Amino acid sequence: MLATILHGKGDIRCEEVAEPTILKPTDAIIKLAASCVCGSDLWPYRGLQPMNGPANMGHEYCGVVVEVGEAVKTIKPGQFVVGSFCLSDNTCPHCRFGFQSSCEQREFMTGAQAPYARVPLADGTLVATPHMPDEDLIPSLLAVSDVLGTGWYAADAARVSEGSTAVVVGDGAVGLMGVLAAKQMGAERIIAMSRHKSRQDLALEFGATHIVSERGDDGVKRIKEITNGVGAESVLECVGTQESMSQAISCARPGGHIGFVGVPHGVQIAGQDLFFAQKSLMGGPAPVRRFLPYLMELVLKREINPGRVFDLEIPLSDVAEGYRAMDERRAVKALLRL
Amino acid sequence: MLATILHGKGDIRCEEVAEPTILKPTDAIIKLAASCVCGSDLWPYRGLQPMNGPANMGHEYCGVVVEVGEAVKTIKPGQFVVGSFCLSDNTCPHCRFGFQSSCEQREFMTGAQAPYARVPLADGTLVATPHMPDEDLIPSLLAVSDVLGTGWYAADAARVSEGSTAVVVGDGAVGLMGVLAAKQMGAERIIAMSRHKSRQDLALEFGATHIVSERGDDGVKRIKEITNGVGAESVLECVGTQESMSQAISCARPGGHIGFVGVPHGVQIAGQDLFFAQKSLMGGPAPVRRFLPYLMELVLKREINPGRVFDLEIPLSDVAEGYRAMDERRAVKALLRL
Repeated sequence: MLATILHGKGDIRCEEVAEPTILKPTDAIIKLAASCVCGSDLWPYRGLQPMNGPANMGHEYCGVVVEVGEAVKTIKPGQFVVGSFCLSDNTCPHCRFGFQSSCEQREFMTGAQAPYARVPLADGTLVATPHMPDEDLIPSLLAVSDVLGTGWYAADAARVSEGSTAVVVGDGAVGLMGVLAAKQMGAERIIAMSRHKSRQDLALEFGATHIVSERGDDGVKRIKEITNGVGAESVLECVGTQESMSQAISCARPGGHIGFVGVPHGVQIAGQDLFFAQKSLMGGPAPVRRFLPYLMELVLKREINPGRVFDLEIPLSDVAEGYRAMDERRAVKALLRL
Repeated sequence: MLATILHGKGDIRCEEVAEPTILKPTDAIIKLAASCVCGSDLWPYRGLQPMNGPANMGHEYCGVVVEVGEAVKTIKPGQFVVGSFCLSDNTCPHCRFGFQSSCEQREFMTGAQAPYARVPLADGTLVATPHMPDEDLIPSLLAVSDVLGTGWYAADAARVSEGSTAVVVGDGAVGLMGVLAAKQMGAERIIAMSRHKSRQDLALEFGATHIVSERGDDGVKRIKEITNGVGAESVLECVGTQESMSQAISCARPGGHIGFVGVPHGVQIAGQDLFFAQKSLMGGPAPVRRFLPYLMELVLKREINPGRVFDLEIPLSDVAEGYRAMDERRAVKALLRL
């Protein structure tokens, strides 16, 4: 089959590889309904993350189970399933505490930018739909797997609540999903920080009530103006740089919460600053598995349409163009048709 | 009157000063029932905090109101009152959000190691008891003002809940109050990290179920053993050093919460470590005012006895011995009789 392999900085190729097979009795093999490129794929693509030889890319997935290992009990061939980018047994103490992304057996999904993929820990990781979903829901179900689940976790960690004010730092796909999540959680004011017209429009469509195009100190000043000098109860940090983290902390009110889901690159936090700022920080790889059943239900009931975040749709064979378009910020997120 | 003045590193004196007077219409003057030395007083005493000339020391207080400014409406002369070390109007948005220690008008109390003190923002800051309290309750009411309120906030920020496991890092007075708070909040396992027999005994008296005398990696290993490899839901960081903060973060389980109330000195937190640890951090100067009415009631009903934290009782004129004893860790906390 054709699959996506990253050979080194900027060198992404669609090439012939062997189809995946069951390696462990807890594995499943799925035929993907669609795949996509993640913002986090750009770190190694840009040469900003060390690599150990060529890498099988892709960790967002949904599709039909074609085979299961002998220890798989609940997941069956023929089911349509969605899983998280974090593979988890869903039975260990961390999973039962709702932090499946810290599962004792945690692995990270790979090789999903391809027509077939192997999903380890299938029973713990995969959630099946009650029926075969309509074709037009595939992009939204695929989004649940990571980008929506991660934006949702940002809002959850930032403790967005009914009637509150939420600020979203970052207008990438995760930030836009954070807007959608804050809206679903009942935030009254949702302020999206974005400088790009097309992303501002998507943010407004997902529920943003305000757009702030300024950054840094000017951005913080605008947030303070909008919140009568108080700051926001909840801030979703969806970038991962020192600037974005500082901005997020400054936008929150004392006693407010920052949920951070952008993998921090070179971010340092001074303990004394955080102390006197008196704001809570909670982040990490999203425990998407916790949210999967609920988010899948919202999609199947057509109450949310996170698939709108895909603004480029290309065949798998053109995957290199997907990476390029996202790297150059011409696209928010690329959907790969298989 | 005699009051406590810090002139420089190690140079603490009890000397004659003018009695305080009303300076602003929102002030009250109180006659203190007792005073005490705070662990945070040791930072400037040890020369580890810059000073602008001689300083009036003391920020923990309770006593009888003797005079109020013309704008003071609810507090009356003759009332017995307790206030927080953070002075607040209790009406601004931050106060109403429960974070009076970030009040828009916040000031820090000074000059309370003396028989009389001026309390700015009296209506917002002070809480009166329904009756004149029994003499033996004075140490506990004094403790509410800061040391108990701060330990309570550590437990609150660490989200201690019924049936949970709480670890307390630091066996100073605040850490011991954190043990008491965790007990009141229903923690099932309370693990006090302490190497000193007398402090271990006090921790056990306040409700600790386990004592861990190891520190650093060994201490973390013991916590993991006690929690079946999982870690604690809640960790109270009551020291403020890099070592204690790292230890606190490592003792929490993924999805767990660290409440930090030791003022961080030179603490740096790497964003990526915090991300992958997946634990929440919340700290700051304690919003004691939020907890005052409840904690005063617990003391007046004799349900808690935080005054037990005072293991040295001396007259104000011997205040220098109080600082020395605490500096040398011969005393947990010194009560000053006026």
